[in-house]
Amino acid sequence: MTDAETLAERVKAGDLRLYELEAHADADTAAAARRQLLAEEVGADLETVGDYSFPTDRADPNIENMIGVAQIPMGVAGPLPVDGEAAGGSFYLPLATTEGALVASVNRGADAIRAAGGANATVLQRGMTRAPVFETSGVREAAAVADWIRASRDRLAAAAEATTSHGELREATPYVVGDSVFVRFVYDTKDAMGMNMATIATREAAEVIEAETPVSLVAVSGNLCTDKKPAGINAIEGRGRSVAADAVVPADVIEDRFGTSPDAIAEVNTRKNLIGSAKAASLGFNAHAANVVGAAFLALGQDVAQVVEGAHAITSVEVRDAGLYVSVTLPALAVGTVGGGTGLPTQSEALELLGLAGGGDPPGTNGDALAAVLAAGALAGELSLLGALAGRHLASAHAEHGR
Amino acid sequence: MTDAETLAERVKAGDLRLYELEAHADADTAAAARRQLLAEEVGADLETVGDYSFPTDRADPNIENMIGVAQIPMGVAGPLPVDGEAAGGSFYLPLATTEGALVASVNRGADAIRAAGGANATVLQRGMTRAPVFETSGVREAAAVADWIRASRDRLAAAAEATTSHGELREATPYVVGDSVFVRFVYDTKDAMGMNMATIATREAAEVIEAETPVSLVAVSGNLCTDKKPAGINAIEGRGRSVAADAVVPADVIEDRFGTSPDAIAEVNTRKNLIGSAKAASLGFNAHAANVVGAAFLALGQDVAQVVEGAHAITSVEVRDAGLYVSVTLPALAVGTVGGGTGLPTQSEALELLGLAGGGDPPGTNGDALAAVLAAGALAGELSLLGALAGRHLASAHAEHGR
Amino acid sequence: MTDAETLAERVKAGDLRLYELEAHADADTAAAARRQLLAEEVGADLETVGDYSFPTDRADPNIENMIGVAQIPMGVAGPLPVDGEAAGGSFYLPLATTEGALVASVNRGADAIRAAGGANATVLQRGMTRAPVFETSGVREAAAVADWIRASRDRLAAAAEATTSHGELREATPYVVGDSVFVRFVYDTKDAMGMNMATIATREAAEVIEAETPVSLVAVSGNLCTDKKPAGINAIEGRGRSVAADAVVPADVIEDRFGTSPDAIAEVNTRKNLIGSAKAASLGFNAHAANVVGAAFLALGQDVAQVVEGAHAITSVEVRDAGLYVSVTLPALAVGTVGGGTGLPTQSEALELLGLAGGGDPPGTNGDALAAVLAAGALAGELSLLGALAGRHLASAHAEHGR
Amino acid sequence: MTDAETLAERVKAGDLRLYELEAHADADTAAAARRQLLAEEVGADLETVGDYSFPTDRADPNIENMIGVAQIPMGVAGPLPVDGEAAGGSFYLPLATTEGALVASVNRGADAIRAAGGANATVLQRGMTRAPVFETSGVREAAAVADWIRASRDRLAAAAEATTSHGELREATPYVVGDSVFVRFVYDTKDAMGMNMATIATREAAEVIEAETPVSLVAVSGNLCTDKKPAGINAIEGRGRSVAADAVVPADVIEDRFGTSPDAIAEVNTRKNLIGSAKAASLGFNAHAANVVGAAFLALGQDVAQVVEGAHAITSVEVRDAGLYVSVTLPALAVGTVGGGTGLPTQSEALELLGLAGGGDPPGTNGDALAAVLAAGALAGELSLLGALAGRHLASAHAEHGR
Repeated sequence: MTDAETLAERVKAGDLRLYELEAHADADTAAAARRQLLAEEVGADLETVGDYSFPTDRADPNIENMIGVAQIPMGVAGPLPVDGEAAGGSFYLPLATTEGALVASVNRGADAIRAAGGANATVLQRGMTRAPVFETSGVREAAAVADWIRASRDRLAAAAEATTSHGELREATPYVVGDSVFVRFVYDTKDAMGMNMATIATREAAEVIEAETPVSLVAVSGNLCTDKKPAGINAIEGRGRSVAADAVVPADVIEDRFGTSPDAIAEVNTRKNLIGSAKAASLGFNAHAANVVGAAFLALGQDVAQVVEGAHAITSVEVRDAGLYVSVTLPALAVGTVGGGTGLPTQSEALELLGLAGGGDPPGTNGDALAAVLAAGALAGELSLLGALAGRHLASAHAEHGR
Repeated sequence: MTDAETLAERVKAGDLRLYELEAHADADTAAAARRQLLAEEVGADLETVGDYSFPTDRADPNIENMIGVAQIPMGVAGPLPVDGEAAGGSFYLPLATTEGALVASVNRGADAIRAAGGANATVLQRGMTRAPVFETSGVREAAAVADWIRASRDRLAAAAEATTSHGELREATPYVVGDSVFVRFVYDTKDAMGMNMATIATREAAEVIEAETPVSLVAVSGNLCTDKKPAGINAIEGRGRSVAADAVVPADVIEDRFGTSPDAIAEVNTRKNLIGSAKAASLGFNAHAANVVGAAFLALGQDVAQVVEGAHAITSVEVRDAGLYVSVTLPALAVGTVGGGTGLPTQSEALELLGLAGGGDPPGTNGDALAAVLAAGALAGELSLLGALAGRHLASAHAEHGR
Repeated sequence: MTDAETLAERVKAGDLRLYELEAHADADTAAAARRQLLAEEVGADLETVGDYSFPTDRADPNIENMIGVAQIPMGVAGPLPVDGEAAGGSFYLPLATTEGALVASVNRGADAIRAAGGANATVLQRGMTRAPVFETSGVREAAAVADWIRASRDRLAAAAEATTSHGELREATPYVVGDSVFVRFVYDTKDAMGMNMATIATREAAEVIEAETPVSLVAVSGNLCTDKKPAGINAIEGRGRSVAADAVVPADVIEDRFGTSPDAIAEVNTRKNLIGSAKAASLGFNAHAANVVGAAFLALGQDVAQVVEGAHAITSVEVRDAGLYVSVTLPALAVGTVGGGTGLPTQSEALELLGLAGGGDPPGTNGDALAAVLAAGALAGELSLLGALAGRHLASAHAEHGR
Repeated sequence: MTDAETLAERVKAGDLRLYELEAHADADTAAAARRQLLAEEVGADLETVGDYSFPTDRADPNIENMIGVAQIPMGVAGPLPVDGEAAGGSFYLPLATTEGALVASVNRGADAIRAAGGANATVLQRGMTRAPVFETSGVREAAAVADWIRASRDRLAAAAEATTSHGELREATPYVVGDSVFVRFVYDTKDAMGMNMATIATREAAEVIEAETPVSLVAVSGNLCTDKKPAGINAIEGRGRSVAADAVVPADVIEDRFGTSPDAIAEVNTRKNLIGSAKAASLGFNAHAANVVGAAFLALGQDVAQVVEGAHAITSVEVRDAGLYVSVTLPALAVGTVGGGTGLPTQSEALELLGLAGGGDPPGTNGDALAAVLAAGALAGELSLLGALAGRHLASAHAEHGR
């Protein structure tokens, strides 16, 4: 029996638990043992899953009960010229996805933006959040605690910032609902996406609040953060990076690339992205920003569950003399270039492709640049899909009405 | 020069476009050429990205401008016993993620559910949507068209279903806003996630509407679908699978696994998942359902951008005599076991791990089972995080109050 | 001592409760006694409140603990020409409000609509809702009950309709969340706003559900109705009357009445009503529909708390060759011409002013007509405010830029 | 011919417009002339409408095209004991409504609160908002303008506050969406509800922004205010007064008044107000707060269209050792004791009934007290309805299960 087979046997015998294998073997053997066990118990062949191109222990910080990897096809769109304080240059955007036609669509958008002279992108705001919830005896105590929190910002900042070398507390805003007090802590976490940093820092600050006021901490996250749930608070106040990109695309480029006109695209945007989303009681007024955010997040080692916040985008379109003005604003893009999945081999290479692996100088600039490039990528995706929809509309209108 | 280098040169020379390489070489060489080009243009080393364990052309339907793959660590949580019409048995849930501690957390939840005798899961509804938007001359014409659509269901169904061997039109509901008419088509797409099927079928139905009424199609998607944007309409009416899972976990299991009590978990759920989400103007009333949905989607070849709809989950908790009742309801889980990314090698293996690769017999049952298992996985995740939060709360309450 | 004084004394002495006076005196004396008591206890002079122009007992069905009336100034806007199946003719719309300039604004809008040849209005849908919530043992039982409800529509309709001479059950849609089952009953309540009718009918239907399935009724309203709370479900699916109105206003009328252009109004609508409301995470995409709905509701004996649902309006604007197309769609306008406050003297006179007092022939037509006229009124309000905002914008743009 | 008849003739002859009558006659005659005209044109008898108990010109600031008044029955609920910084004492709450049973319901709640020793109420925040929207050339200019606004608070405050003797600028927060910049101005408007004050002040501040930056004002309200539309931004950040009230009601009082238990009420609250509203994609998590807010607004001269914001309430319930804890939090209650409808005769008397007519000392205290009393009233309404629903539930549960 191989070592892996031996380990698998011990799990089957109830001698070891599935998550304890790394204590008894190296990462590689542990993963192999799990595949062995699953082959025996479920009859599953995990050969491809178990065949990856990096040392198994590189994934230690990212996974437990590892059996291998999921391999997601990666393509590139671009070059995509981006202009702005955070990022300037021409980028090949890596996108990992299983949705056929997505990369091609973003690529078409990038091509049109290139023909238009490039996109602008700007980071509006930076701030990762964590919002614990406390219980009090009632509304009057809750109000008093909220006042105390507003008055004690420096003290909370000192406690929070003692846990981190980079993070800075930007805001600590209390919200009262009945006898619950929620405090939304907002941090500048620089080049890290920052959820962990924010959580650790908030725990310290929460201890100060508990020590100095009569409240009791119920949960370090009270859902006003809001992490990985669609939420008005993020759509309005932002989370992670708030970022926007735009471009003015001449009418002849629109005609050439999409076979349609700025007017037709504006109509699609109004009826679909604005009125349609309004009628759907939506918190996302865009065509498919989540597609680009999701595929880029995957390629670049970001947390894919945060595509939820990333989907809170508003796409606007206007017909100007110079052509079609199109913008996309993403208020809640949670990105980082250090930590999380950014250190994994393929992800790190993808970040290198953008020239954005690791911390920026000064700290935060790589994170900003990543947000800006992703916004430009989302813009390319929006333009391309709106163009395609409008093109088909026009085509169908022509066919039907004999125009 | 290798073939790849030659191709790369031709792109640099402007002789070929990045997306045209597959017309001039096999998939493998085309991908290598792109890596070569990026190495030269951006100085990026894409060695790990380019080293994957399947024939490149297997990814043809899933990607364009391919350069390789993103490798995302995959672990398993379980075994997770699930009981219900759609799925019965004990499952090892594959999860691909870069977020350390996530698999461990779901695994702890699965362990507690196992100790509680397993989870129930039930598919409430099946229906993939597509909602085109039409323009009319005004509200009166729009109302008349809406009436026509309501009266013409059979005809629309005939047109839509002619495009598909499996899909069935379930509903075609018109919504009027001013001079816009949106029609939300709902299809049973069986074991396919079904967006493409729904789009193609809807296009045919839309042509019938255009032919028979005075409207003009503006866009085949008018955002009432709603695809990949958070939206009340999905949270309320569902999209893809609507699925729910629950379990009753005895108090001693709660105490043993999480060091806390059903009461404490109930309080966390109320203040965080219900009141906190309410205050955040959220459309997701859960702890981190998107984490499980996202990681499982990745592993299992689903469309990760649809984690947006997947995040519309409501977690409920009650203290019963028998222990802690906990449920999670996901109204809009877009899943499939055929099509999309399900045919890719690692993804297919992951589906095999659940015994759910390919179409079910009868059609739709594999998709239902996948939804049920994912709901049970989300339940494990919810229970585990609520337990951890409540455990810390209790610990901190003890420490502070000397109880 | 007058009779009123004697009664007041008995309340002060603890011999009678404030709400028991009608059992010991006529309505007039009881109200006077309360004023007397309040004068003594709080020193309040309620002379004007107590001086009204109708027999006190006319208000019996509408109020308890009556002390008199609130007098709200009433004005008229119009004539407002309305064309449509539900209502045709020229109407003076009565509006009761304390907000100076509101009636004038609606009047200006009505004037512009008149100059444009009138408004169209159409009732899209009719259906008052009530949605009880039931508890079950868990998700699988909940799913089974939902199936039973879908299959038992006729039986539920029979039970519900046995309680009413006019009402008809249109839909009974179950929604499952964990172990809760909500059933949204939708009734055609004809000329009544219908909340009471719907509640009574639903109670009967709920008893059938309780008798035939293992569920227990938790509350006859489970907030999926949704009554008097802003809610996506009403914005999407409608409640009461769903109604829309529009008009095409020539550019010269826009210029003459508002000193601005269709283009400028379109820009205000896009940035304010669409993008602004989107960014605000709003469920109302209009300028001030609630103002018109509220003032008309007050004048016409409607339930003012239902201005909440009435505020779920979407205003759309387009520039057409013929001028400015403007529409407003109100999906959830709860109106009636019988019952509620419609029988009160001033309210009844206001309904007469529209020719819509009492039940219609056939039943429901007066309610439809009222909805149509109110939609046209809301349209006048939207047009007027958008015109005023755009006019100021243009004026300010001129002043600033020397154009 | 009377003077009124003469005027009516001139309108009919096209010699005068309906809104010009006050320039040719006193207010009383003008109103009579309109009634005369309507009698002739529409055949409407407006006798009761035209018979009110105050001098017509008292309504001058509140109405145009006046024809008389709507008379809404007014009752009282109470006494309602309220404890808190803003308001202390026992209040008879005046409620004007046409919804039978509403006053009785609130009265029952007040009775239970009285038996429980009274309610607490606290004003969490004060701030009326106005949010103009500006256009810029694109996202980068928009970002720069947002920075300028953040850096220019004092200057904006100076401009804004120059227009008002009482108002103070509290915040001016910019929000960027594409090339639109919204600025949410928040004012302490003391005892005035403050919309007009806020609008006038904002106009001045907007002129400074236009003068100093390249932007152009599109509309003085860009819907991020958000006035009279349901909106997450108000539910989260508050508008007008943010106020909360609570009480702890002993189990025996619950049993005695409602025939039910704290546990049963807690269950109704969770399933209806929390889970039900969550499922409805609602922005109001309460039973019927709008009913109390609406009826009190009517009685007390507030703007009834703002019941929309008032409906954004969250009701929370917990079972404590001491009984049922119940709270209601209203983040966006737009109230005032000066201006608007507060000076009208019946409304002013109603304010006197609370001892809250006119400005407070110091300014703002009367407005705060009014908000606190209304929150306590809303609490009474919530408790009463929840109790009634739970009581029926219990009754029905008993009957069915033979318990």
